[in-house]
Amino acid sequence: MAWLAASLGLLFRVNIISCLLLCYLLLVLLGGAVFTAVERPVEEKLRAEVEELRRSFLQEHPCVEESRLRELLGKVLSAHRGDVAVLKADTDDRHYDFTSSLYFVIVTLTTMGSDSYTPKSEEAKLFCIIYCTLGIPFTLFLLTLLSKLLLHVVTHAPVHHLSTFWGLSYPRAALLHAGLLFVLIMCLLFLLPAFLICEVEPDWNFMDALFYCFVILSTVGQGGNSLGRSWSPAAKETLELLTTCK
Amino acid sequence: MAWLAASLGLLFRVNIISCLLLCYLLLVLLGGAVFTAVERPVEEKLRAEVEELRRSFLQEHPCVEESRLRELLGKVLSAHRGDVAVLKADTDDRHYDFTSSLYFVIVTLTTMGSDSYTPKSEEAKLFCIIYCTLGIPFTLFLLTLLSKLLLHVVTHAPVHHLSTFWGLSYPRAALLHAGLLFVLIMCLLFLLPAFLICEVEPDWNFMDALFYCFVILSTVGQGGNSLGRSWSPAAKETLELLTTCK
Ligand SMILES: [K+]
Ligand SMILES: [K+]
Repeated sequence: MAWLAASLGLLFRVNIISCLLLCYLLLVLLGGAVFTAVERPVEEKLRAEVEELRRSFLQEHPCVEESRLRELLGKVLSAHRGDVAVLKADTDDRHYDFTSSLYFVIVTLTTMGSDSYTPKSEEAKLFCIIYCTLGIPFTLFLLTLLSKLLLHVVTHAPVHHLSTFWGLSYPRAALLHAGLLFVLIMCLLFLLPAFLICEVEPDWNFMDALFYCFVILSTVGQGGNSLGRSWSPAAKETLELLTTCK
Repeated sequence: MAWLAASLGLLFRVNIISCLLLCYLLLVLLGGAVFTAVERPVEEKLRAEVEELRRSFLQEHPCVEESRLRELLGKVLSAHRGDVAVLKADTDDRHYDFTSSLYFVIVTLTTMGSDSYTPKSEEAKLFCIIYCTLGIPFTLFLLTLLSKLLLHVVTHAPVHHLSTFWGLSYPRAALLHAGLLFVLIMCLLFLLPAFLICEVEPDWNFMDALFYCFVILSTVGQGGNSLGRSWSPAAKETLELLTTCK
């Protein structure tokens, strides 16, 4: 009898796990399908624009051979990958200084990752590996401490207060608190920062800014566009420091 | 007396936390200083190379004005940020298809982040936010399940085996096991993949490949260079699928 119960229990657990895996597979396939459908037209439009740009440049400058231009663009793009200032206008304000270094250290330790810079020399890569092997667990440990503290201050204490002093039943107090907390978090961590970002970054719309807040807070990382590409050096340093303190 | 003990306990805890925070601050500052020292010369060398490239192109093609070239480069670079194929050679093999979509979904859900693609349309960004809000916790939940399973199979069971059947004392068995596991993990997750990457990617040296393995496994994300930039479409798709299954 005990054997039967144990077998049934095991079967049940295996079933739950395969169910979860199946759900996950479906979720991933759904994501893939939606992104393909939504992004392909946008991608094709951008591609056509760039092609048109290159073609009209070649037409206006008959002395330039297509192969030479392609070579230049290829080298410039591969250098840009390593975040070198390619345009003269950029040359002054993108020095690799201590602020950038600190910014890189913080986004790496929080596993957010920066797209705008990656170590280029062998020594820096080796140091980065050793540094992160110690630094990332330490960072996660401190963040866990902080989240435990926040969990008490933000969750347990207010629910207790609501249920004791306002005379609400515990489930009702928890529900009310969850609703209020959701609104507060949305405002303070998403809507307000997104609004401020729209103010300082004229090219971005609200959705860009909201998306930016989301990828930073979920530690997914910035991907293509990062803030402050068109800013003065001083504004950039302020931004980097701000993100660092976040 | 109890009050004194409680105060001392609190003081001790506060001291430990401030100690930890101080250590962390020092760690971050050290990282910042080292990266600045190591990377500045490399950055300056790359910058000079690109500047020289642009200058010699202008000299060879007198019909091209500096301002027009700068404009073209600027537009091409900003389009490249959005991952559009700028060079004609690229045009055929970088279609945004279902494989890329799946790859994007997986690297986003594991919070690794892809630098080579970011949603461009409003709909895709909105969908990404909602999708990740559900998908990232689900992914982390499944990964936690997997790590619990692995913890038993890889850690508890062998140590138990060593101490029972080989007659080793428990601490000694744990030490021996930790050593063996470290060597195994280094070989299977770092050295072997790095060696294979060096084979397929002729431009990369061993440190590049090791660094790539590290940033993927730590979910920091690829930053500047990602694998397969110079590959055929088929090889790229294989790579994307492989990374997806990892
Ligand atoms: K991450
Ligand atoms: K990341």
